[in-house]
Amino acid sequence: LKLIDQRRLPASLELVSLSEVKEVSEAIRQMVVRGAPAIGATAGFGLAIAAAQSEASTREKLIGELDSAAALLRAARPTAANLEWALERIMHIARDFRGDVADLRGLVLKAAQDLADQDVETNQRMARFGASLIEDGDTIIHHCNTGALAAVDWGTALGAIRMAHEQGKRVHVLVDETRPRLQGARLTAWELERLGIPYEIITDGMAGYFLRKGEAQKVMFGADRIAANGDVVNKIGTYMLALAARESRVPAYAVAPTSTVDLSLAQGSEAPIEERDPSEVLGIQIAGEAAAPLRARARNPAFDVTPHRLLAGIVTEKGLVRPPFRENLARTSAG
Amino acid sequence: LKLIDQRRLPASLELVSLSEVKEVSEAIRQMVVRGAPAIGATAGFGLAIAAAQSEASTREKLIGELDSAAALLRAARPTAANLEWALERIMHIARDFRGDVADLRGLVLKAAQDLADQDVETNQRMARFGASLIEDGDTIIHHCNTGALAAVDWGTALGAIRMAHEQGKRVHVLVDETRPRLQGARLTAWELERLGIPYEIITDGMAGYFLRKGEAQKVMFGADRIAANGDVVNKIGTYMLALAARESRVPAYAVAPTSTVDLSLAQGSEAPIEERDPSEVLGIQIAGEAAAPLRARARNPAFDVTPHRLLAGIVTEKGLVRPPFRENLARTSAG
Repeated sequence: LKLIDQRRLPASLELVSLSEVKEVSEAIRQMVVRGAPAIGATAGFGLAIAAAQSEASTREKLIGELDSAAALLRAARPTAANLEWALERIMHIARDFRGDVADLRGLVLKAAQDLADQDVETNQRMARFGASLIEDGDTIIHHCNTGALAAVDWGTALGAIRMAHEQGKRVHVLVDETRPRLQGARLTAWELERLGIPYEIITDGMAGYFLRKGEAQKVMFGADRIAANGDVVNKIGTYMLALAARESRVPAYAVAPTSTVDLSLAQGSEAPIEERDPSEVLGIQIAGEAAAPLRARARNPAFDVTPHRLLAGIVTEKGLVRPPFRENLARTSAG
Repeated sequence: LKLIDQRRLPASLELVSLSEVKEVSEAIRQMVVRGAPAIGATAGFGLAIAAAQSEASTREKLIGELDSAAALLRAARPTAANLEWALERIMHIARDFRGDVADLRGLVLKAAQDLADQDVETNQRMARFGASLIEDGDTIIHHCNTGALAAVDWGTALGAIRMAHEQGKRVHVLVDETRPRLQGARLTAWELERLGIPYEIITDGMAGYFLRKGEAQKVMFGADRIAANGDVVNKIGTYMLALAARESRVPAYAVAPTSTVDLSLAQGSEAPIEERDPSEVLGIQIAGEAAAPLRARARNPAFDVTPHRLLAGIVTEKGLVRPPFRENLARTSAG
């Protein structure tokens, strides 16, 4: 399994090769690969690696080993629903299989490959629904990275923006830099640069300024987990952005596949929120010097919850879901 | 005139010596010195330097040169009201003076010194009023730097927190790192470290998360200019913080001397907002590598406007001003 090392972008484009489940789990944990759909697909291939390397002589033993591998992969990042979803989907196929152990190995690889292929199609559908919300001349504020790097291709919110651009609409993107890991400044800007879409990077605290000045017509972001009531768990900073959008009556859209919807979660506050190492907050430099005092402490929750009432809609591969979200999400996810 | 070079903190504590008005103006523009009260006091000494170096043979000629010096200093940073206020106050004293030119030189220096001395007293009064709002055990979210570095001593919002700490109240500070120039992570954390006040640095997009979780009881920041209706112009990111505070029913206070109040400004949207060089946004590094693509563009408004309705109060050296702000600010500023 070869992945772009997203930690090194935009300074250098490097591939890492992974050949062990533990390496795949570590790559997800350390954010070599990130973005909810992308880590779902990566975890799928993690299971395929586990299946290929297993010396299990029976179907039951192999299923047991795959269960352990899935638990390891699931623990890598607790917040993204797609990770669980991908693992459960493949494990379901594996458990239902009644053939011999060699065929099961092949089946797991095929299931992982199917899942990745489907991700591309899902994203293109989302992109089309999302693009239909974007008008010619719109400036869109975008949080984190939701482009091709965050998925198998196209991405979610950035996919919608790319689709609008390819449809000939003039779009301009204000890119939230997205502290602490700067996925906006590092990854979204890099993707927009390559796509030829005009953009400007802003710090996360600036979005409200531009919204109040009437300089943005849409706000778009992805989602790591969506509760049954429509609350969106997404990269830290999304909540404050959505709040500022609502205050200026600018519509805010989450763009995410239905695999992100977790109907078992009544509301966003029940979601597990990963708190990552403080060094991600403290480790930036200006002119080569550390920005924070040597002994400084920091907090680092990686996600926050945007209450559903701040959203104009949720764009999925099955169409735009509008309020009331509880009813409409249940119908869309089941359909 | 000797100043701490705030651009180098916390990595190193360096003094710069200034002996020309142009150097003082550049030091303000490049943020060697920053913080509304501090640049007011610095500008005062800038005038004193101009007076001392002038070869003017008449009172009128010296006043003319001081007017030019004041214009140069005023242009260095357009948003902070204290800068204008300090310059106008000293120029007013100079213009009213009826003695000879040599005495006028001495008078300008004395006026600058008086202004700096008064700043300390003003800040201590503010600190006491501000501290009375802080309860034992409070966690306070703080934006930018408003401590001793931002004033002649004590500071504004951070002065209130320091006073509460010195009164024996247990306080904990969540320090907004305050992108782009990281005054929170670099300066506020450095000051809190020296004062022995417990704190944790957070990124600006995290404040809403902690407010929603009920982990903060107060929000406090300074102000660069306050309009007659109570709208607060302050460091970029303040608006989104105040919005999140209001949403979680946590009181947000601006702490600023009455010299920050600009009664000629009907509302905050009329204030001049400085847009600084994009390199401040693009110039941070992770592990020595640039965070943004080489050709990336950025926006960099340095301030935003927090509408008065998001504020629980404005703490001045004359006491706490509560809504309705228009009436109460006019009374307080005049008093």
